[in-house]
Amino acid sequence: MNAGAFNFAVLSRPEVPERSVAAGSVIFREGEPATEMFVVKSGTVAIRADNHLIAELKENEIFGEMALIDKTSRSATATAETDVTLIPVSEKQFLFLVSETPFFALSVMRVLVHRLRLLNRIG
Amino acid sequence: MNAGAFNFAVLSRPEVPERSVAAGSVIFREGEPATEMFVVKSGTVAIRADNHLIAELKENEIFGEMALIDKTSRSATATAETDVTLIPVSEKQFLFLVSETPFFALSVMRVLVHRLRLLNRIG
Repeated sequence: MNAGAFNFAVLSRPEVPERSVAAGSVIFREGEPATEMFVVKSGTVAIRADNHLIAELKENEIFGEMALIDKTSRSATATAETDVTLIPVSEKQFLFLVSETPFFALSVMRVLVHRLRLLNRIG
Repeated sequence: MNAGAFNFAVLSRPEVPERSVAAGSVIFREGEPATEMFVVKSGTVAIRADNHLIAELKENEIFGEMALIDKTSRSATATAETDVTLIPVSEKQFLFLVSETPFFALSVMRVLVHRLRLLNRIG
């Protein structure tokens, strides 16, 4: 892990219930309004757009942050590939974290940059 | 402009000299170490990777932020397409802005998400 990186798993807090999702269930669908992002606590989540797999996310990875950042609807569908446990992060908490925790903001940026680099490499 | 968006042009400060770059000049080259990002104050900057045009940036747009975020070398070459005036933002100032100015952090995230959406659409 980089110096200054943020361990997204610390977002698990006693006051916020984790969410269990059974293998095969849809977490959110393309086109839906977005009110939260997620940290994967365990299991594997698949992200698909137009039925094309664009990412598989595992423990301590985040997804669903894009629609919170630019306030649009979901641009892809997230499905539990295995039984998964998620830590939901509301839009309000996301904005609070960005304000109060520079390492969180930088870590979200690193995730986005990593995805951009992968896409540029493929493209 | 979105509510809460950051006007990158405000980064122009009397104590930081703007940088004038003549049309056709290289601003940075793929593979070089990165120590700053830039706001375009005027003119047009082309971003190319493997001689493939991946973006054209104009007034109040930013570039060069990816290598600051993940501390890698430049992944693309930036060239002045016209005479341009740039506002350089050092790594130290970038980290300070992320810490102290949540709107700046969110605005950088919006730029990254916008680029991801464009790439996903093309891909």
